Amino acid sequence: MGEFELIERFFKRPARRSPLGVGDDCALLQPAPGMQLAVSTDMLVEGRHFLSTVDPLRLGHKALAVNLSDLAACGASPLAFSLALALPAANEAWLERFSRGLLALADSHGCELVGGDTTQGPLNICITVFGEVPAGGALLRSGARAGDDIYVSGSVGDARLALEVFRGRLSVPAAVFEAARARLEQPTPRLALGMALRGIASAAIDISDGLAGDLGHVLSQSGVGARVDSVSAFGLLASPGIPVDTALDLVLSGGDDYELLFTAPPSASKAVQAAAAASATPITRIGTIHAEPGLQLVDRSGAVLMRRFTSFDHFA
Amino acid sequence: MGEFELIERFFKRPARRSPLGVGDDCALLQPAPGMQLAVSTDMLVEGRHFLSTVDPLRLGHKALAVNLSDLAACGASPLAFSLALALPAANEAWLERFSRGLLALADSHGCELVGGDTTQGPLNICITVFGEVPAGGALLRSGARAGDDIYVSGSVGDARLALEVFRGRLSVPAAVFEAARARLEQPTPRLALGMALRGIASAAIDISDGLAGDLGHVLSQSGVGARVDSVSAFGLLASPGIPVDTALDLVLSGGDDYELLFTAPPSASKAVQAAAAASATPITRIGTIHAEPGLQLVDRSGAVLMRRFTSFDHFA
Repeated sequence: MGEFELIERFFKRPARRSPLGVGDDCALLQPAPGMQLAVSTDMLVEGRHFLSTVDPLRLGHKALAVNLSDLAACGASPLAFSLALALPAANEAWLERFSRGLLALADSHGCELVGGDTTQGPLNICITVFGEVPAGGALLRSGARAGDDIYVSGSVGDARLALEVFRGRLSVPAAVFEAARARLEQPTPRLALGMALRGIASAAIDISDGLAGDLGHVLSQSGVGARVDSVSAFGLLASPGIPVDTALDLVLSGGDDYELLFTAPPSASKAVQAAAAASATPITRIGTIHAEPGLQLVDRSGAVLMRRFTSFDHFA
Repeated sequence: MGEFELIERFFKRPARRSPLGVGDDCALLQPAPGMQLAVSTDMLVEGRHFLSTVDPLRLGHKALAVNLSDLAACGASPLAFSLALALPAANEAWLERFSRGLLALADSHGCELVGGDTTQGPLNICITVFGEVPAGGALLRSGARAGDDIYVSGSVGDARLALEVFRGRLSVPAAVFEAARARLEQPTPRLALGMALRGIASAAIDISDGLAGDLGHVLSQSGVGARVDSVSAFGLLASPGIPVDTALDLVLSGGDDYELLFTAPPSASKAVQAAAAASATPITRIGTIHAEPGLQLVDRSGAVLMRRFTSFDHFA
């Protein structure tokens, strides 16, 4: 199977929303009047972002999901994506499942594949995603203000729990592991919540490198600090048998969550709850933005918790 | 040096044309009113698209040049690009030269880096480039019509000549090799010509996989055939000591040229010459589009040349 047959069989589909899709030197995109184009790129490398044993169907889903999560964090609605793929060999069974997982998620969000590149090389998946957002209406990391509430969607730390079990550092019942593994391998981009928070949230980011580290990006770009007072083990980390301290560490430094962390003024709390309800996405308030720089972590009684937590760094 | 310091030191620069650049979950792009966004992605893998010995400054140039060449083939003007980079290690000397070559070419075309991703992994460079083109005015592969003239820009086969010398299959004087090597390692995207051909060329493609193969894409997508009657050794392949038959083979099947191949009706020949002059780009007429499918190659006397030529396929 050659390069062009590979594209034809697994990835070429007619463009419906875009003026021009796969098959020419460029694809063409046309944002609607008054809209800006939001763009994000993520590259996934075997052994670093996924295990070689992962089901290619789940890998196809995840490769697009992590990009869609960036659109969600800006409040953008998905439009299209391009896929660049380096493969050791043109393995048909692998391609069949990979493209199925990828395109199923794409279809469920009306996000069409408009171009890309395929080449021989060590397995590498690079997706660039395109979304639309009203001009001036994107949710940014820089908008948090003193007094704002801090929220996270869904549950945080589930993916890291699965990784710790893979690494042999934690042991949980099989059902918990399977649920955690699905969270690691098939994350859910919070697109509906991101769009519902347009005009309501003051800042937003998706949690990919750990809650503490990603909150840190919001704080530094907004020039503020935060007091986190309501983080405890939640989601699958609240399972029996996981020490409370371990669970809290994994919540804060976990990574691969693809949940949204966002801020909003207390005056918008009803609108925030309505956005969560409208998008059928659970949210939790975890703390407050303060004018003083720094991130302070306190328990429910107000006692300061001193903990070491670091965000993920690919070159540290 | 960590991931965030690496981005800060080598790749983060203020966005001037785009509403939002590096540093948030998404970049934001705003095409001018009446313009569409042209998008293209190319992935470069060590050992396949470049040798491990290449100067990183030239590699940075080439990684963006091959993408800009796709914009040129659509007649688009460059706007911005994203860079995803997998590196075995954060080598500062390498990053300094790579980013210098990359950003020098970007600056010379007003094309700004707005986002991307960095990760540890086998060396892989994936760029997605964004350009603007008037709505409905992009040059496509599908527009060639019977009777159109076929042109190529610059000279074709120079890069392949360098590759044949690297492989030890050809031997040329040192000055010829250095010139060929510069063409292989630092190709010139024909952006000014592409933009000047808007409204004049009926079809266009950039020659990346070989003249015959890329002309073949135009023919199949336009539903026509071609008679190529004026291809002979040109550029560096016309150097003394290279057998004429070898030169012709390398012209037709070469690859890595990043020249434009385009078609235009004979009535537009003066406009084509004016576009070439205005963009200071040499062009050569090499044949004619015919209604009958297939690609026929004849010499200057009209005798049919039967030659084997194949375009490059990453999985063949």
